Amino acid sequence: MKAQGIEVLLVFDPANMNYLTGYDGWSFYVPQLIVVALAEPEPLWIGRGIDLNGARETTYVEDANLYAYSDRYVHHDHRHPMDFVAHILRERELDNARIGLDMDSYYFSARGYEVLRRQMPHASFIDVTRLVSGLRSIKSPQELEYMRQAGQIMQRVMKVALGNVEPGIRQCDAVGEIYRAQMRGTQAYGGDYPAIAPMLPTGRGTSTPHLTWTDKPFVREEACILELAAARYHYHCPMARTVFMGDPPKRLVDAAMIVADGVQAALDAVKPGATCEAIEAAWRSVTAPRGIVKESRIGYSMGLNYPPDWGEHTMSLRPGDRSVLEPGMTFHLIPGIWMDDWGVEISESFVVTADGYELLAPFPRKLFVKP
Amino acid sequence: MKAQGIEVLLVFDPANMNYLTGYDGWSFYVPQLIVVALAEPEPLWIGRGIDLNGARETTYVEDANLYAYSDRYVHHDHRHPMDFVAHILRERELDNARIGLDMDSYYFSARGYEVLRRQMPHASFIDVTRLVSGLRSIKSPQELEYMRQAGQIMQRVMKVALGNVEPGIRQCDAVGEIYRAQMRGTQAYGGDYPAIAPMLPTGRGTSTPHLTWTDKPFVREEACILELAAARYHYHCPMARTVFMGDPPKRLVDAAMIVADGVQAALDAVKPGATCEAIEAAWRSVTAPRGIVKESRIGYSMGLNYPPDWGEHTMSLRPGDRSVLEPGMTFHLIPGIWMDDWGVEISESFVVTADGYELLAPFPRKLFVKP
Repeated sequence: MKAQGIEVLLVFDPANMNYLTGYDGWSFYVPQLIVVALAEPEPLWIGRGIDLNGARETTYVEDANLYAYSDRYVHHDHRHPMDFVAHILRERELDNARIGLDMDSYYFSARGYEVLRRQMPHASFIDVTRLVSGLRSIKSPQELEYMRQAGQIMQRVMKVALGNVEPGIRQCDAVGEIYRAQMRGTQAYGGDYPAIAPMLPTGRGTSTPHLTWTDKPFVREEACILELAAARYHYHCPMARTVFMGDPPKRLVDAAMIVADGVQAALDAVKPGATCEAIEAAWRSVTAPRGIVKESRIGYSMGLNYPPDWGEHTMSLRPGDRSVLEPGMTFHLIPGIWMDDWGVEISESFVVTADGYELLAPFPRKLFVKP
Repeated sequence: MKAQGIEVLLVFDPANMNYLTGYDGWSFYVPQLIVVALAEPEPLWIGRGIDLNGARETTYVEDANLYAYSDRYVHHDHRHPMDFVAHILRERELDNARIGLDMDSYYFSARGYEVLRRQMPHASFIDVTRLVSGLRSIKSPQELEYMRQAGQIMQRVMKVALGNVEPGIRQCDAVGEIYRAQMRGTQAYGGDYPAIAPMLPTGRGTSTPHLTWTDKPFVREEACILELAAARYHYHCPMARTVFMGDPPKRLVDAAMIVADGVQAALDAVKPGATCEAIEAAWRSVTAPRGIVKESRIGYSMGLNYPPDWGEHTMSLRPGDRSVLEPGMTFHLIPGIWMDDWGVEISESFVVTADGYELLAPFPRKLFVKP
């Protein structure tokens, strides 16, 4: 905070709130935050009244530092929870300060920002987007353990998914089995809700990554892309695979082989000291000569998160990103290929190790075919 | 738009985007929007490049009105998708205008707002929070049909949930069965992902509404609150019930009876012309004399939505909300009671009809007890 020139930090991102205090619950649909101040020995939690006991159950924040706003502030035309937040900051004499904000957080709105500025005219607001998310990049041994457990669950989930994507089975029924496997986890540990719902575009829909499902049955001679995740205490392991029901067209078989080779080339470039863009360059060196060219990034850092995204929004595997890999960083390497009316996704989640990489969920890296 | 004094409307909320154009997909974790302009006969869709085919698949927007930004704008320190949006608005000569924004949308960030203001210095921005959400309040017959289908699914989901909340069963395993039922739906129609994950606080956790689950088994002599939903094409039917495993304490039995009576009193007050606050007053008249007093609202309008909330953020059943009920409006009546270390939730989802109300998912309205 000193390096960024701020005295007070307002943390709205649920993953960052969890990281700093343990706070957990599906309450982020109303404004809530953690306040970290150089002048305060402990953080404050500010949230909605009905979530106060949730803060008591899940955080270490002492009672004197828990502030709950009345329901009168919730979804109201003329009152906003940020009115209450400003009131608390004034009371704590934290309003006349250099205040850092994650200006690009989903759960801190433009209206909330305007209210804060109006209510605290002597504060100066500084965008410190990714300050806390950046701290989350390198995982502790305990965090890696959760992600490996998510990886174990993910392997089971993908097996269940591939078993249920069959001509004649309704997409929604396959998704029911996928969710069930995501939550049941293993005998030793259960699963949590991933930050993104199962994505499984089928047929023409495979030309784009973010479609979900319908209640129509799967159809022979169509592909289905499965982009799924498993989560353990909100720590993720995502994985994508593609399955074709029938006799796959040569362009899809070829693309899947090139993608798999590209993924291996990218992984082979992973080691401490390498840059994010070097990983992408390794992919490109293998795939571009064979005709697979891709504008969008081929991966991103991920780990602890809440909806709507499991990505950390810090590092991207793409040209121009010179972030340097360090042991304990975790990425989803997902070079999705989306053409006019078809596509293929084969991904890997990995940890950077002392001398290379560790896959979180080893699984056959190929186009699956159901004859 | 004319009444609100705006010439251009930027719509970031995924439910509002779906409502206006049909756009569907889990792509709201990056900025995307619909532009409605008085000067343009048709809306524009602006989103990320890899989601362009998703817009083609799910909307009626013609190709000339689809604008996709490069992945270079995604999660970048010095570029923002709103830079691209401003560029398109300038190109369409929509920048020197009175522009309406939902300033409290999750998916339009404070940083995005600052970029728009910097890039379009001649525009004036007007907060029209709830303009489109307000249009969504009164459901069409087709929308009500989807919500009734969600209600049919919800009845099955709650039966499955109550069957699986048993001492010795792991919470995560019960949640697996809940998700499976949510997605499988009925033979006639499958389910969609609800905007909120299953919430099922247990034991002391029942003192607060938004906790999810662990992989610990349910324990005898504890309660579990099930606040769940089913969804059809993103149209919701939520429902909460409370179950006690063992011999329930008298305070819980009494509270559940009072809540159930209060819910009936509130429902009996539902009719076109009644106000939101009158529904709450009817609840209060029955419950307050019997010692159940509640600060937070007892319900809200709901329907079509995406994570993180199924509520519409328009009307709340609480003192001071004089919104007038009209046929086709849909609400979740959820007077949750949360005490120091226990709580109870029994809710109903209903439609306002010509002369009263229709329950979306009739289900026994009582404390469930597992002896």
